[in-house]
Amino acid sequence: MPDLLEIARRRGFFWPAFEIYQGCSGFWEYGPVGALLKLRVEDFLRKALMDEGCMLFEGPVLTPQDPWVASGHMEFFTDFTIECQKCGEAYRADHLLEEKTGEKTEGMSLGELQKAIERAGIKCPKCGGKLGSVYDYNLMFRTEIGPGKRKVAGVLRPETAQVTYMPFKRLWELARKTLPFGVVQFGKSFRNEISPRKAIIRLREFSQAEAQFFLLPEMKNRHPGFKEVAERKIRCKPKGKGEKEIEVRGLKKLTSEWIAYWIAKCIEIFERMGIDRGRLVARQHEDGERAFYSSDTWDIEFISEIFGRIELVGISDRGDYDLKRHMELSGHDFRVDFQGKKVVPHVIEVAFGIDRPLFCLMESCLKQDGKRVFFSFPPNLAPYQLAVFPLVSRDGLPERAREVWMELKKQGWLAVYDEGFIGRLYYRQDEIGTPFCITIDHQTLKDDTVTIRNRDDQSQIRVKVSGLDEKLRSLFK
Amino acid sequence: MPDLLEIARRRGFFWPAFEIYQGCSGFWEYGPVGALLKLRVEDFLRKALMDEGCMLFEGPVLTPQDPWVASGHMEFFTDFTIECQKCGEAYRADHLLEEKTGEKTEGMSLGELQKAIERAGIKCPKCGGKLGSVYDYNLMFRTEIGPGKRKVAGVLRPETAQVTYMPFKRLWELARKTLPFGVVQFGKSFRNEISPRKAIIRLREFSQAEAQFFLLPEMKNRHPGFKEVAERKIRCKPKGKGEKEIEVRGLKKLTSEWIAYWIAKCIEIFERMGIDRGRLVARQHEDGERAFYSSDTWDIEFISEIFGRIELVGISDRGDYDLKRHMELSGHDFRVDFQGKKVVPHVIEVAFGIDRPLFCLMESCLKQDGKRVFFSFPPNLAPYQLAVFPLVSRDGLPERAREVWMELKKQGWLAVYDEGFIGRLYYRQDEIGTPFCITIDHQTLKDDTVTIRNRDDQSQIRVKVSGLDEKLRSLFK
Repeated sequence: MPDLLEIARRRGFFWPAFEIYQGCSGFWEYGPVGALLKLRVEDFLRKALMDEGCMLFEGPVLTPQDPWVASGHMEFFTDFTIECQKCGEAYRADHLLEEKTGEKTEGMSLGELQKAIERAGIKCPKCGGKLGSVYDYNLMFRTEIGPGKRKVAGVLRPETAQVTYMPFKRLWELARKTLPFGVVQFGKSFRNEISPRKAIIRLREFSQAEAQFFLLPEMKNRHPGFKEVAERKIRCKPKGKGEKEIEVRGLKKLTSEWIAYWIAKCIEIFERMGIDRGRLVARQHEDGERAFYSSDTWDIEFISEIFGRIELVGISDRGDYDLKRHMELSGHDFRVDFQGKKVVPHVIEVAFGIDRPLFCLMESCLKQDGKRVFFSFPPNLAPYQLAVFPLVSRDGLPERAREVWMELKKQGWLAVYDEGFIGRLYYRQDEIGTPFCITIDHQTLKDDTVTIRNRDDQSQIRVKVSGLDEKLRSLFK
Repeated sequence: MPDLLEIARRRGFFWPAFEIYQGCSGFWEYGPVGALLKLRVEDFLRKALMDEGCMLFEGPVLTPQDPWVASGHMEFFTDFTIECQKCGEAYRADHLLEEKTGEKTEGMSLGELQKAIERAGIKCPKCGGKLGSVYDYNLMFRTEIGPGKRKVAGVLRPETAQVTYMPFKRLWELARKTLPFGVVQFGKSFRNEISPRKAIIRLREFSQAEAQFFLLPEMKNRHPGFKEVAERKIRCKPKGKGEKEIEVRGLKKLTSEWIAYWIAKCIEIFERMGIDRGRLVARQHEDGERAFYSSDTWDIEFISEIFGRIELVGISDRGDYDLKRHMELSGHDFRVDFQGKKVVPHVIEVAFGIDRPLFCLMESCLKQDGKRVFFSFPPNLAPYQLAVFPLVSRDGLPERAREVWMELKKQGWLAVYDEGFIGRLYYRQDEIGTPFCITIDHQTLKDDTVTIRNRDDQSQIRVKVSGLDEKLRSLFK
């Protein structure tokens, strides 16, 4: 396979951040092509989630500390960490132990980890120095808001979810006081990972699209769209069992109808987006593995040839844990009147990453055809929709090509204009996944036709300039 | 005028953040309607800036400290602050002095401010307590990145600009090593304001779209699009002079052709967006007022009836200040080979806010017509494009209305479905600015026609369901 990360850097998809200052691990930058691709992924997901009835919401990424005390993140959102006393390098204690001894560390306490590491005589993998003591390291970035004596502790949110829960009462009113209702928040979150790695897969600053569905417990087993997906087959790995293919109606028995529906729906969304469905697995978290707020969690994982298993979305039954905790700490009443009862709704969360699906979309679409390398993005996901070239840079072709380009832009197409050796122009567009290239040649000057070249099979058709918009519309349908 | 902030809260545009935890000034949340409106504003600006040749870029909001040492923000991005020794309330010392004495504070040093405040015998406006000493307060939020001994100082960016400058060499290559070229970064920035106020106008966390144009100094006086805008008339206030109306070609004499072009272009963009052009003024910063990095700055201000003058965009000649500072501190060579010379480009910055144009768009479009209140957003800026209702909730009308709604959604329209008393349904859509409401009535069942109701004049036309998509397309052109 061609080197995805090399193409990503060279063609302006993404690269490590702050390179001139020796970088800072866990931070990456999106170049001109990547920033467009990210917009496409976000637009696609937003439309998909709004089609499922979600309202949008956007809250701050920087918040006071209170909500994270309520949510439990202040106490539990930690990793066991150990540092080298000589070189200062820090490691996740559990990962280090697993790597060095193969021991299973799930559920181990701080003390148990400490003892196991000592027993195994593990030294710093980097410099061979002596390791210090294991300690609990909170993954939230902290800051202070406001000046002087009145300043308050601030936190960069580690997830969007709590920020969506806080205005629950306002959202409930805007949803016209009915259940179930869904709210999705797009935006950045932050985790001060001990050792971020794998390019844009494990970032300290990342983008999310987390949907929260508020509903009654008894609604979890009746989703209005379930029938539509019930017969689809899903590759899945239930907790404590092996991987198998199973119908969604069977999957439901291992979880709730809502979660089974969303597993099927997410896989459908990823497939429509252009991610290779054959590499997706729905994996249920083991009992010791789930986050503290969840009673049942399923991840949809992509099997990457570059980075192993990548979690693209997490679907969790968060129960009434979060809303109740905010009620307790804030003193605000989150009970709502519904069908004659006062209830605190439960939450099913569908938490999409953005950076990871973007990466897996790129990996799924990266194709090699002889010497030719291209991204076979679905037309609506491609960074640029069109490219326009003159066949040669003389004989009035560039002038006509620019006119056609301007006309297409006026019609609303996102098109790039370029000139040069035609083979190289196609090659360049292939490497950023532009689905259609329009070439103005000598025949254009005679009969006002241009060629449309298809990225995937390099086939060409000729169409009149006057019919270009309509033809392109049909190609993008 | 109707109460914009009340409508904004009630209809789900925006409201103060973290209300259940008593809020935190300078942070607001966008509800379902506001989040959509914000997307529209961003999409509109992005398209406008890409039409002007800008590439996109997206870097982290959380960065190491180095770039801000280089940029001067570490040293100069400060406000003189004074706190009450009794109640702890903090104030901007210059604002406090101006308010209490009317004294001009521009250019005053810390010591001068201190003396002037003492001389005037100013007490805490809140509790009457004694004030402490004036001190220099840096407006950047600080944090730490990474664990243990290896952690580094982190900063939440106070502007996107520096984050765009750091990968200058990569962007230069992606721009094919030519000048001028433009890059725009959309995203959040953060300023730890001493006393944020005015709803979403002065936020501690806010959204921006800052475009950076890299060019040679001699290019500043030839912008390729200048002729197109030269004869437009601009209301402006040059430094040291009074406000007047002036042609862009005259404006150019007070600044450079690039800046004059962008003043005209920004006003055009705001007007097309739906902001009242009659309330826009281009104001040149006075000599003592400019930011430390700028040799010439123009703000376009909106004259708000609610919040006074609001800066919507700042256009600055940043010279080669920033790139040279990063060269010095990082040791990276930012000189590029261009037309046979090694040069460090200059930068003209066009720095748009997002939250403020959104607010001014709302203020410009808020209309009262008898008892009816509506937002006259241009159709492409409206949060929802369409609403679909049955005239009454019986006789099979809701069923048919839902079919029409589903059909419109399939065609790609963003439409809401609603039922109830028809007058109230229209009223609700008016208050969120939905331009067209489609009503299914008894005649629909006979001849398959529906009414399209125009928000602005309440006029109605009847069209066949089969011709709805085409008719709507023409209405959105």
